[in-house]
Amino acid sequence: MATIGASEFDTATAMDVDASGVWHGQLHDGWDIGGNANGGYTLACAMRALVGASGRPHPITMTAHYLAPGRPGPISIAPEVVKSGKRFCTVTGALVNGEGRELIRVLASCGDVLDGGQDVEHHDVMAPTVDAFEVCAERAPNNGEVTVGLMNHVDVRLDHRSVGFQTGVRSGRAEMLGWFAFRDGRPVDPLALVLACDTFPPAVFHLDLPAGWVPTLELTVHVRDVPTPGPLLCRFRTRHVSNGLFEEDGEVWDSTGRLVALSRQMALMARAT
Amino acid sequence: MATIGASEFDTATAMDVDASGVWHGQLHDGWDIGGNANGGYTLACAMRALVGASGRPHPITMTAHYLAPGRPGPISIAPEVVKSGKRFCTVTGALVNGEGRELIRVLASCGDVLDGGQDVEHHDVMAPTVDAFEVCAERAPNNGEVTVGLMNHVDVRLDHRSVGFQTGVRSGRAEMLGWFAFRDGRPVDPLALVLACDTFPPAVFHLDLPAGWVPTLELTVHVRDVPTPGPLLCRFRTRHVSNGLFEEDGEVWDSTGRLVALSRQMALMARAT
Repeated sequence: MATIGASEFDTATAMDVDASGVWHGQLHDGWDIGGNANGGYTLACAMRALVGASGRPHPITMTAHYLAPGRPGPISIAPEVVKSGKRFCTVTGALVNGEGRELIRVLASCGDVLDGGQDVEHHDVMAPTVDAFEVCAERAPNNGEVTVGLMNHVDVRLDHRSVGFQTGVRSGRAEMLGWFAFRDGRPVDPLALVLACDTFPPAVFHLDLPAGWVPTLELTVHVRDVPTPGPLLCRFRTRHVSNGLFEEDGEVWDSTGRLVALSRQMALMARAT
Repeated sequence: MATIGASEFDTATAMDVDASGVWHGQLHDGWDIGGNANGGYTLACAMRALVGASGRPHPITMTAHYLAPGRPGPISIAPEVVKSGKRFCTVTGALVNGEGRELIRVLASCGDVLDGGQDVEHHDVMAPTVDAFEVCAERAPNNGEVTVGLMNHVDVRLDHRSVGFQTGVRSGRAEMLGWFAFRDGRPVDPLALVLACDTFPPAVFHLDLPAGWVPTLELTVHVRDVPTPGPLLCRFRTRHVSNGLFEEDGEVWDSTGRLVALSRQMALMARAT
């Protein structure tokens, strides 16, 4: 079993800071969808540096705007500490590739997700009931027209209600339910939650709409707790498709049923051809 | 009836660009809650400049991290165009006050919200049924311990299911339902949607939790359409309060029932005293 600090994810998101405060790493081959680095993976690399520069333990809320597709190769980011406050440190930076092309711009606040105390709790929505992790089919890297190399590293499993689109059966309900884990058994920490929020097939694949590449314009992730080890229960939903845009909302619970992250992205519909 | 370009909101959010590309304006007195400029108003001022610098008609998705309370006085922002693409222009900037103190950092993508076409539509959630605008009570600037000057400019009306907290009756359901309009009758355009998404009392006021100031850490607004003139139907909900943090999700429909904006903020619970 891999551990936090010694795992495929840690290797693939490693970033080293130089004397001038610039962080350097690599977009690793194989964390991709059809050759383009997964957006959650790219953001996790950027957040490795931004969290490091913040001096705080966890990313709390982060937003990325996606500018260009990421390919395997060198990346770097020069974090700017916007404000180092008592509870939070706000940081921003541009992740660029080896040619200096900007891939994503990120704005984030980091802190200790647990330092607000747990004395006040309220939950209107509980984790949904889904098929057990063990009985759900794993997603293979090759199960459609596009090779999803990412699936060699992450173990995404869909509930039976969410698999129809794979055989052309569209439920008309834009909801993906299932599980996320690392294949090497690494526990999911707050940094890895960023990846988890962008690894499911788009929920709009359940709709009778033109299929294809649905590029992310913007992704925001809220980390709400440190997950207890074990697979994460995930639900992704799209409620509104209009003007060529849609939102996808993610909810992530840990193995004890505790909410650990909320995400929302704005993405672009595939255009009818 | 005020018009877009000649209204209280336009005056209060006016920003002028100088020869070096820096935009200057004022946080106007009276767009506040207890003396602090409303967060949606502050973001609208910043977006006036960022949209201007983008050369695109509308803000599409924007995120602000709140760093310091805004007070009446001069503000300025030097927009950086991150990427000017075919469909979107991504921009960022720091809104600072007259002493150079940064109030908010903003990252946004602008474009034409209508240019994706309307050929593909899907809506899972429709506008809720609420009391008619005319029968809902207006919110006065003085209806609690805190003076909300903002209410002199905006006309926020709550559905009967959302007013109990004002008299200490807490429903236990963190939902605010009601209407938003400008008092001077100005139609709500995409820029003003940013304000609309942050003008309701916090939905957590319906919960039996310590009451008080719940500062926003981060606010993201997605503009989904250009509203048809008329009051906007709004719903704000909080589903999870944990670790001292909560999200508030906003949905905004125009007078024809069309979704025009989604918002989400991360805010901090009032601490038990």
